Amino acid sequence: MRDVAVLGVGMTKFGELWDRSFREIGIEAGLQALVDAKLSSGDLGALYLGNMASGSLIDQEHIGPLILDYAGLGDRHLPAVRVEGGGASGSLALHQGYLAVASGLYDFVVVGGAEKLTDVPDATGNQITSSAADHEWEVVFGGTLPALWALIARRHMHQYGTTREQLARVAVHAHAMGAKNPNAHYRNPVSLEQVLAAGPVAEPLGVFDCAPLSDGAAAVVLGPMERAHRYTDQPIRIAASQVACDAMAVQHRRDVTTLDSTVVAARRAFEQARRAPADVNVAEINDAYTISALVALEDLGFCEKGRAGPEFESGRFGPNGELPVNSSGGLKAQGRPFGAVGVAQVVELVRQLRGEAKDRQVKHASLALAHDVGGTGATSVVTLLERGS
Amino acid sequence: MRDVAVLGVGMTKFGELWDRSFREIGIEAGLQALVDAKLSSGDLGALYLGNMASGSLIDQEHIGPLILDYAGLGDRHLPAVRVEGGGASGSLALHQGYLAVASGLYDFVVVGGAEKLTDVPDATGNQITSSAADHEWEVVFGGTLPALWALIARRHMHQYGTTREQLARVAVHAHAMGAKNPNAHYRNPVSLEQVLAAGPVAEPLGVFDCAPLSDGAAAVVLGPMERAHRYTDQPIRIAASQVACDAMAVQHRRDVTTLDSTVVAARRAFEQARRAPADVNVAEINDAYTISALVALEDLGFCEKGRAGPEFESGRFGPNGELPVNSSGGLKAQGRPFGAVGVAQVVELVRQLRGEAKDRQVKHASLALAHDVGGTGATSVVTLLERGS
Repeated sequence: MRDVAVLGVGMTKFGELWDRSFREIGIEAGLQALVDAKLSSGDLGALYLGNMASGSLIDQEHIGPLILDYAGLGDRHLPAVRVEGGGASGSLALHQGYLAVASGLYDFVVVGGAEKLTDVPDATGNQITSSAADHEWEVVFGGTLPALWALIARRHMHQYGTTREQLARVAVHAHAMGAKNPNAHYRNPVSLEQVLAAGPVAEPLGVFDCAPLSDGAAAVVLGPMERAHRYTDQPIRIAASQVACDAMAVQHRRDVTTLDSTVVAARRAFEQARRAPADVNVAEINDAYTISALVALEDLGFCEKGRAGPEFESGRFGPNGELPVNSSGGLKAQGRPFGAVGVAQVVELVRQLRGEAKDRQVKHASLALAHDVGGTGATSVVTLLERGS
Repeated sequence: MRDVAVLGVGMTKFGELWDRSFREIGIEAGLQALVDAKLSSGDLGALYLGNMASGSLIDQEHIGPLILDYAGLGDRHLPAVRVEGGGASGSLALHQGYLAVASGLYDFVVVGGAEKLTDVPDATGNQITSSAADHEWEVVFGGTLPALWALIARRHMHQYGTTREQLARVAVHAHAMGAKNPNAHYRNPVSLEQVLAAGPVAEPLGVFDCAPLSDGAAAVVLGPMERAHRYTDQPIRIAASQVACDAMAVQHRRDVTTLDSTVVAARRAFEQARRAPADVNVAEINDAYTISALVALEDLGFCEKGRAGPEFESGRFGPNGELPVNSSGGLKAQGRPFGAVGVAQVVELVRQLRGEAKDRQVKHASLALAHDVGGTGATSVVTLLERGS
């Protein structure tokens, strides 16, 4: 298999984009990525599109060709394929695009992620969010996504002594970073007191512990590493792309507080790249709920099991820490348009590795990790990116 | 890229399976395919699942890990990826599975297709069917799938003199074949008079011109051709797998009566396999509507443009004709569980190539073609299968 590079990145603002349609935001992100890659649409071989729930949200399935068509590429008859895996849809699409280029079948592909979540009422949006959990064994009994993550949080607090304040620190950090990101859904810093005082969603998780419903799109252009230098001085190599799944329902897992899918995907990714967690300089991790981020830091191997709370509190994962995470603001502040999330993580990391992240720039970033989760962890995708040489 | 073989096939009965859940039928098909391939689940590297609309139909997205989990494979943490492209979802999943094995990333993968369409009222099911057309430019103006295919039929009749009776012959043929297929949704033969006398859906298309809403699942096991002989005496090689897309809305196409996506996917497939339409001995083609089958025969290169009506009437595509099509009964009689359709086509063709199709067996079948369509042709997938040597 060939080495694959990210040649271009693009994304729309995330937020409540009521004046823009699904196809508009999808195309904007794709076009930005193409321009950034200095490619023309004539160079493209295929489109992979990550999206979780367009059927329920906008009465539209079959959105691969929809985006291709409205990007003006319909008459080139490229293959366009939608990929879905709950909130991990975007990074699953990236995995398929990676595979398509690595195999040699296509040279250049666009991987997009897009979701339009705020065209339905909030209650409907929240219901659709939970369709990534097990409908028959969780959701019908009230096990919505926030309820299930609350259960994971309770157990983590009980088992490891994680505190309510440690959870809240994740949200404070996300909003602080979102304030520096012009594309973020939320750009307002929040204080620890505000997070702790906010109304409950599913205790111990309050309003600020849960990422919002957002609209948004992101896209990257992938191509063979061996040809990357024709297009860019700073090709970013995909050092690993790995997917792992687990039981759908939390109750069927080996351990409530561990996402085995993340553990396994990370292990496979570090093996593929011949690197270790300690080599990573910057990461975007799933913080759909504040507890998600703590669990992720442990399961990715960035700290011991049960230690993420105090280590987060110590600033180790902050902008000046040893391993800055979610410089974008994460799902919590940058926003959470399901299918776009995993692609937007890669957009942020590519900008970090290129040194283009402005106010958010992390120092000495050469190896980056993206971590995307579907549901409560039935799917995890781990991607490693490194500066090309 | 490596040569890829189909090592095992399985499918459930298609129909109104009100006593069985989505996960049950998905697992039944997958298990049949595994047993047929003489593989154990421990040999598998990944699962690809074709499904169009589980979110709208059963309030469940994220169905890749759902099926993996309930098949007892959750604790092996395999990657499970759902692929969607309207009615072509199943064959798109096959394309991704093919790519995964061809690339060398995985050795053995299961490709499944499943849809549970009859758990919602018929009106809802029909509405969801049309979410594969362009919602903003077609569906909201009344351009549902049957209406759009009726428009294609009207134009085909006007331009080429295709008759109402020629359309009806497609349904008569499908039911005659379905009567011989124990898995078919409809096993009752129908007469030309019955088809012509049936109530209208969207004129000129009547009730018998439209494939039903069905539940069902199908699965195949793929593996590298070089290792196929360890598992089977009759490996079936995937000689080509090609996807092409086109404008979503019929009104934006170059020609209303031609599916350019089919023309291009077929051309690419014949190039990949270094074969020609005349080499094909047996085919499963999209007959979601009777007109779909006639247009497909032309666009695949099996007859001249505009000639499919009289040539179908002549028996050329019947069980004793030069090129028997839809020996399974097609979408019209075998059934139309969207995401399962493209996979079930391959199941039927593998049985034909192995000589296991019993009453439906086509003589001297060595090269087979499967043709799957999403919406009114925004996606087409063409797969060529041949007996291994």
